[in-house]
Amino acid sequence: MKILGIDPGTRRTGYGIIIQHPHQVEVIDYGCICPPAKASSSKRYLIIFEAIEELIAKHQPEALAVESQFMHKNALSAMKLGMARAMAILAAERKEIPIFEYAPKKAKKAIVGHGSASKEQVQRMIQALLHLSELPTPDDAADALALALCHAHTLSLSICLST
Amino acid sequence: MKILGIDPGTRRTGYGIIIQHPHQVEVIDYGCICPPAKASSSKRYLIIFEAIEELIAKHQPEALAVESQFMHKNALSAMKLGMARAMAILAAERKEIPIFEYAPKKAKKAIVGHGSASKEQVQRMIQALLHLSELPTPDDAADALALALCHAHTLSLSICLST
Repeated sequence: MKILGIDPGTRRTGYGIIIQHPHQVEVIDYGCICPPAKASSSKRYLIIFEAIEELIAKHQPEALAVESQFMHKNALSAMKLGMARAMAILAAERKEIPIFEYAPKKAKKAIVGHGSASKEQVQRMIQALLHLSELPTPDDAADALALALCHAHTLSLSICLST
Repeated sequence: MKILGIDPGTRRTGYGIIIQHPHQVEVIDYGCICPPAKASSSKRYLIIFEAIEELIAKHQPEALAVESQFMHKNALSAMKLGMARAMAILAAERKEIPIFEYAPKKAKKAIVGHGSASKEQVQRMIQALLHLSELPTPDDAADALALALCHAHTLSLSICLST
């Protein structure tokens, strides 16, 4: 099972691609989609959309794991996040890739053990769990890997429970 | 100048296409994109996106007029609206159609004369201004025509000011 994790954002959208093998998880790629700071907001969304389409075409993931919702302090931030998130969901839906949504706290809990983990704690745990030679940066990429890993854990658990 | 107005929403996305002639406005089409109630949320966004792509391909608008923001009572509603809005913005940006954003109050003020107009007032004024034989329904379609008309008014004003 190849999983694409996406941590959406208008400034930086993190991505992480992993393969869940029977007894281990393999990291394929991770990084960030960073539209130019001077680009218009609509151009930013197009850049994010096209980059995710490229990732899907290149890696052919079988599932998308994406943030479900984030409690923002204001409606405008929530709307912007929703628009970035929509790019991932649209790109996956167009290719009929199943979409799984996880609350940020759930992903943190699955990785670090509690939902209030700091960004650095997530990065360090992702490095350890995925046997990475260095800390995954920026934190958006680590968060995207955390979402993908959270989905892999959920899958493993459901397999365990059904056998 | 052919203008596509979009009033985004996950249940119903209103659209309206008008042509701004030198001394009159012509209505080309208006209506609603209504994804099936039972469709998944991601499928709804795909349906909205593809329908707007179709409208653009069919009518070749030279401008998109879309709601800028809406003060929602909660972040989740704002995020959902943002996602529907993103479909219009992405479809236009992909075809390099200039995007113009108007606050709902500004569109209402341009049409009815004040920003707190009821939906029915907007519908009745749109019917009168565009010489429609019947009330434009549903109200989302009237709101989309109002956005397109608001952009047409802004254009006319800027032409008046520059000459």
